[in-house]
Amino acid sequence: MLVQNGVKKINHNIHELLPAVNDEHGGIIVLVEDPMEPNVFHYMLKHSIKVWKLQGKKGVWIKMPIELANLVEIAVKEGFWYHHAEPDYLMLVHWIADSESTIPANASHKVSIGAIVFNHKRELLVVQENCGRLKGSGIWKIPTGTVEEGESIFEGAIRELKEETGIDTEFLEVLAFRQIPKSFFNKSDLFFLCMMRPLSFDIQKQDLEIEAAQWMPFEEYANQPLIQKDGLSNYIKDLCLAKAERDYQGFTPMPITSSVFDDHMSSLYFLKDGLDQENSAL
Amino acid sequence: MLVQNGVKKINHNIHELLPAVNDEHGGIIVLVEDPMEPNVFHYMLKHSIKVWKLQGKKGVWIKMPIELANLVEIAVKEGFWYHHAEPDYLMLVHWIADSESTIPANASHKVSIGAIVFNHKRELLVVQENCGRLKGSGIWKIPTGTVEEGESIFEGAIRELKEETGIDTEFLEVLAFRQIPKSFFNKSDLFFLCMMRPLSFDIQKQDLEIEAAQWMPFEEYANQPLIQKDGLSNYIKDLCLAKAERDYQGFTPMPITSSVFDDHMSSLYFLKDGLDQENSAL
Repeated sequence: MLVQNGVKKINHNIHELLPAVNDEHGGIIVLVEDPMEPNVFHYMLKHSIKVWKLQGKKGVWIKMPIELANLVEIAVKEGFWYHHAEPDYLMLVHWIADSESTIPANASHKVSIGAIVFNHKRELLVVQENCGRLKGSGIWKIPTGTVEEGESIFEGAIRELKEETGIDTEFLEVLAFRQIPKSFFNKSDLFFLCMMRPLSFDIQKQDLEIEAAQWMPFEEYANQPLIQKDGLSNYIKDLCLAKAERDYQGFTPMPITSSVFDDHMSSLYFLKDGLDQENSAL
Repeated sequence: MLVQNGVKKINHNIHELLPAVNDEHGGIIVLVEDPMEPNVFHYMLKHSIKVWKLQGKKGVWIKMPIELANLVEIAVKEGFWYHHAEPDYLMLVHWIADSESTIPANASHKVSIGAIVFNHKRELLVVQENCGRLKGSGIWKIPTGTVEEGESIFEGAIRELKEETGIDTEFLEVLAFRQIPKSFFNKSDLFFLCMMRPLSFDIQKQDLEIEAAQWMPFEEYANQPLIQKDGLSNYIKDLCLAKAERDYQGFTPMPITSSVFDDHMSSLYFLKDGLDQENSAL
């Protein structure tokens, strides 16, 4: 390894293959991590693809760190196209088999949660935000937040509540969900309204995004003019009431696997009572 | 415009701003469409950012077509990072304001549907796939498919059924949904199980992905060994029965807007009967 101008340079043997690992679907993922001369990368990429083709590989992925943005052009010249990107890397892909491509579609939805938490005095956990569109509006709203990459919906709801208000909670049900097609560029939003049971009651608000947080009598929340004139908020209010006072039922998560279709660990959310009745009747 | 080696080159006035449009959040979206000399692009980008900063712009986006992959490196050098990518373009972003960034998170989930369609003879619409993991397995399964970018869940379900089987349907309810965290790279899957009412009955199968399609007596479907041994399929089977024979209720979509939170057209999916009872009691 040479260090020139503070940048480490690896001396690559151009007759070797690019560093790569196999994926689970007969493809291969190139992991370029260190700076590389563009012409060396170009030669090694061509050579590697030739070998992988002979080996019967199908999809070739390149996970390209943003520091190596100078190599993107070369991969594109060799037939790669973009699959997805995150702040620090670009994923390129190239289907090198003769068969039809089975490369999965890119992610299309951002997922967020809104959390309904009542205490024993029929008070609702509400916050005022100090950034974004609602900053300075004085509106008290239920806590909301984004489900992070790789996180499950119920984990995201528990984490966001803890971060924003300091309250520990248990996840109960999804009462409703909202899909907003094309909410940012061509991507969409899915918002899950979650019913939570509080496990603690002392509020410790987060300062970055939250101006204030409190337990508020439900009627006081529901009577805010901005809540009353908003379509979504009216449904949330009605769902709160239906849940608190009547027998509204949401979807409960259950861990399931699918050995036939995909082998992934996952959660199925459904109306548990509706299925239990069925099963008990069999 | 010059044409050299079959490539059109635009003569840019380097003292002009890059072509761009304002977004709805105080930011600006650069639309580079024609080939550009890298050094010209570099100069114009620096100049444009200086002007936009003075104008009080916050986020600067560059929608970079894959044909212009040679300009990616320059944008990164100027402080841009990756936001998302689609096969034919890379979206870069740079927060140039002093305030805290409000750049939205990237999409994290792919969305797909599975469709339950019964005819009047208690037969279920099923298919055999001729690609992917189930090819050649002989398994009959409910039709499934990916919800496309910008499409709503109910539209996706109707479209996929029409494409795969030729059957026209009306969307009724989401009976359940399944979240698979980290199903591909760090991205996740959301699968919505949809109850549909058939509006036509003559099957015209699609050849590309579908080996065979038919109306199958429900018990014959449910008794397939692969369906019986699969965790997910067992729940789907039980949900079919609970819906067909008892009063299992899913979530129904309702168009809503939110003037306070985001102004977007959207659909709220919830247990309609559960809310109607509530409203009628008020």
